[in-house]
Amino acid sequence: MDTFMKAAIEEAKQGLQEGGIPIGSVLVYRDRIIGTGHNRRVQAGSVVLHGEIDALENAGRQPAAVYRECILYTTLSPCSMCAGAVLLYGIPKVVIGENKTFVGEEELLRARGVKVEVLDEPLCIDLMSRFIKASPELWNEDIGV
Amino acid sequence: MDTFMKAAIEEAKQGLQEGGIPIGSVLVYRDRIIGTGHNRRVQAGSVVLHGEIDALENAGRQPAAVYRECILYTTLSPCSMCAGAVLLYGIPKVVIGENKTFVGEEELLRARGVKVEVLDEPLCIDLMSRFIKASPELWNEDIGV
Repeated sequence: MDTFMKAAIEEAKQGLQEGGIPIGSVLVYRDRIIGTGHNRRVQAGSVVLHGEIDALENAGRQPAAVYRECILYTTLSPCSMCAGAVLLYGIPKVVIGENKTFVGEEELLRARGVKVEVLDEPLCIDLMSRFIKASPELWNEDIGV
Repeated sequence: MDTFMKAAIEEAKQGLQEGGIPIGSVLVYRDRIIGTGHNRRVQAGSVVLHGEIDALENAGRQPAAVYRECILYTTLSPCSMCAGAVLLYGIPKVVIGENKTFVGEEELLRARGVKVEVLDEPLCIDLMSRFIKASPELWNEDIGV
């Protein structure tokens, strides 16, 4: 499996172990992970720390030139907030683990020139499918439903 | 002046006093403020706590039904991340202090059915104009430039 997606999945699994929503993300700059994160709605009572946002936050303040060479890996198709963060910082590429359990703003990203790759990774689908079945209310809260 | 925009401006001023970027926001539910926030890039070393995101975070975990009756007030036109958060949570209306110093994703919000009102408030324009002139690099960092 892709090394960076593997790291994002490890983040998702860590979130699950903490009692949270299993979505993980890593921000990669020139083939090196500079930020890792996972959804922290439950753990931190946060409504904004989706996995992608958490990874961006943990990467710290970076110059625009760094973001312009980054790839954001996320286990799940990014919601409008996370896609918006990608657009804000001009991140040129997003690699998505799966979009079977949730389809985010892939079209918006593509329309704005972001390269979007979907890996259709069974491990990601499995993690989210089980979680959504077990905790539908928590999942709905996370996507504003 | 609109009471809620006044509260958002107070947040922006507080941010400035803390040495930060003067953008403030309040989340209003049924005519009551349930979350206040201001940009915390400098204060918290945060790349995601724009004023609007901070206000949403400080409002805490809310049911979807609450967001559906909220209005987000922000002193400045919201960037793609903040507009994306509005879309994520289905907030139906955004009131913007000004869009002279920065034009965010107003068109995207309108295209998705969000009501967008721009107050063209001189106090907001003044706060941002002075700040951008004094700290152009910090401002550019905040909008990924």
